[in-house]
Amino acid sequence: MASFAVSVAKNVGMLGSPYCGQTRSSLCKHISFLSENGSRSLCFSRGFHRLVDRQLQLANFSPAAASRSKNKKLLHVLAEKVAEVQELSVYEMNELNRGSPKYLRFSDVKDPITKQPVNALGDLVPFSNKLYDGSLQTRLGITAGLCILIEHNSEKNGDRYEAIYSFYFGDYGHISVQGPYLTYEDSFLAITGGSGIFKGAHGQVKLHQIIFPVKLFYTFYLEGIAKLPSQLTKPTVAPSPMVEPSAAAKKCEAGAALPNFTD
Amino acid sequence: MASFAVSVAKNVGMLGSPYCGQTRSSLCKHISFLSENGSRSLCFSRGFHRLVDRQLQLANFSPAAASRSKNKKLLHVLAEKVAEVQELSVYEMNELNRGSPKYLRFSDVKDPITKQPVNALGDLVPFSNKLYDGSLQTRLGITAGLCILIEHNSEKNGDRYEAIYSFYFGDYGHISVQGPYLTYEDSFLAITGGSGIFKGAHGQVKLHQIIFPVKLFYTFYLEGIAKLPSQLTKPTVAPSPMVEPSAAAKKCEAGAALPNFTD
Amino acid sequence: MASFAVSVAKNVGMLGSPYCGQTRSSLCKHISFLSENGSRSLCFSRGFHRLVDRQLQLANFSPAAASRSKNKKLLHVLAEKVAEVQELSVYEMNELNRGSPKYLRFSDVKDPITKQPVNALGDLVPFSNKLYDGSLQTRLGITAGLCILIEHNSEKNGDRYEAIYSFYFGDYGHISVQGPYLTYEDSFLAITGGSGIFKGAHGQVKLHQIIFPVKLFYTFYLEGIAKLPSQLTKPTVAPSPMVEPSAAAKKCEAGAALPNFTD
Repeated sequence: MASFAVSVAKNVGMLGSPYCGQTRSSLCKHISFLSENGSRSLCFSRGFHRLVDRQLQLANFSPAAASRSKNKKLLHVLAEKVAEVQELSVYEMNELNRGSPKYLRFSDVKDPITKQPVNALGDLVPFSNKLYDGSLQTRLGITAGLCILIEHNSEKNGDRYEAIYSFYFGDYGHISVQGPYLTYEDSFLAITGGSGIFKGAHGQVKLHQIIFPVKLFYTFYLEGIAKLPSQLTKPTVAPSPMVEPSAAAKKCEAGAALPNFTD
Repeated sequence: MASFAVSVAKNVGMLGSPYCGQTRSSLCKHISFLSENGSRSLCFSRGFHRLVDRQLQLANFSPAAASRSKNKKLLHVLAEKVAEVQELSVYEMNELNRGSPKYLRFSDVKDPITKQPVNALGDLVPFSNKLYDGSLQTRLGITAGLCILIEHNSEKNGDRYEAIYSFYFGDYGHISVQGPYLTYEDSFLAITGGSGIFKGAHGQVKLHQIIFPVKLFYTFYLEGIAKLPSQLTKPTVAPSPMVEPSAAAKKCEAGAALPNFTD
Repeated sequence: MASFAVSVAKNVGMLGSPYCGQTRSSLCKHISFLSENGSRSLCFSRGFHRLVDRQLQLANFSPAAASRSKNKKLLHVLAEKVAEVQELSVYEMNELNRGSPKYLRFSDVKDPITKQPVNALGDLVPFSNKLYDGSLQTRLGITAGLCILIEHNSEKNGDRYEAIYSFYFGDYGHISVQGPYLTYEDSFLAITGGSGIFKGAHGQVKLHQIIFPVKLFYTFYLEGIAKLPSQLTKPTVAPSPMVEPSAAAKKCEAGAALPNFTD
């Protein structure tokens, strides 16, 4: 962390005049502002403070001469840089009212005994479900994408899919993912990017299936983004087959749905 | 920025001998070379110069002893690091000569009154259109990918798609994206990566539809890549229903098309 | 590199006490541990060592007071940061035993002379092949995904596809990619992310087709991840039409397949 803080000290210094009218404590206040409410606290030792002092001195730091908006931007950059892995939990629920999933059986493989069609490479499954936060108190939006059936696993009585889809969070933006969906065990998908507060996101997401294929729990391990808003990080209800969104969230009532939640 | 420059000073110093034969100004020349023609200028204050001096002293900086190619590589790394968000505007045009889009109606939903099929989950739309730069003077290449119909929105008289596609820029490489395409309003998609000059790209792209579905305008907010070549960043023509590529660009004449433009 | 090492010196210092009981050499030992067996060596000049000394002094570095696990974590972060582009070579083999590829001909274009269907936009090709390491001594897992036919190129007697797929490496995780697959020439795809040891991966991958469509060779240029395990970076067999996986790798024998290789 310290090095990032020093980066900012230097960056801000760059924008400023050669006069040094800034004290260590005001910079540190800015930085601690950025980390307040953080799920992981930033720990600044005495050694760090001394380091900041030293760098301020070297850089002739003077934010008084720099515009507030430039400072804000740099501090925003800092906030992104120092962001450690942030966890975000969501529930995906199929409430059977979106015509999803749409199983497109384009394979032509049949069970040798029953002569019934079996899932096989060639089958495509567009889908879209509802998305709730980990507390099940807030409707966030939807999921939307495509599952590509790769192989039926008769031993495990399930299927391997390659999945490409996005998670929508209303005005906050979206997260896109790509990777494995196995109907018989948990998996990790790649976070490929995002928009809004999730722009530039990377990392991975754990997919935990509670009830196939209608109730899933995800834990995103997000990197490269600024601090998540508290609206998305309420205490998580532990996944179990019985969990249900609150009645208010299901009805998308004000206060129980994100601003302009995706529908 | 300063901290990155200092990084390079340190990095270059690492490769070199313990002798310090380098002056501040030659390093700064290198750095300003990297930022020349930059859409956002790098601003080096007196404080920064003093900082560079100090770090050069600490690091015993001596590029004379380091090979030119190693320097070049490190400076390239610097160029990538310091790159702020770079904007890149392009036009996507459907000139109705690529058999695109191909609407694959795999849903089986019908309008309750007219009994006509309506767009619904299950429909897939592979597509490929032509790509021009923001000045409409240069044919860049094509777009190519898949739209997955998620939901018809009768209220807004349009459709939500999940879109997965790439933008091709001839020898420069490509940018891949993933996210929402709404036929009735603008949206932001994730930049998931790229190749060539776009390798490692991240950030988001704004999709602005001018005339559905034949004329679209995109603004990429690119992060993580080196400075864009000036051929891609000519002044942008503001989007409007009347805009058209230049005749030379439409004919892909020399000077009005990228080297080995994608077709 | 130096600047990253200094970062760690500062970071570790942050966690510690204000006492400075640490010597330069022990920090450097840690750092050189990280780079041992590295495909690209980290070169630390005398200037660098002096810089580390200076920064340790400024930061009151004292890892004795910091927990081993915190140090480990910070050093892991460092390992990721200093990771240069890492090359990873793999072979994709279609052994004709996975029902792949599944060519879904949804276009309706016919050759004007022969009246036979020709590949055209609208065709979709789900696929999954086997994946071996570059030495052809180890079965890694599988590939899995979708090719979208964009355009038949009669001049080059081949096709342009837009490809979206993942490479599976058993317990190590997966890499996802997106971009062009041309049946008639090499191409570069975007690395969009990954899971496990590949989480947060970015960069590009070169696709080199040896024999269409059953034998392909890939070189990943990976950024943003920690050092690859030696099991994945054995000396690569140069691609040629004659190369074959070892008999042991084909049979997925112990020692010739990754732990829990994907099948």
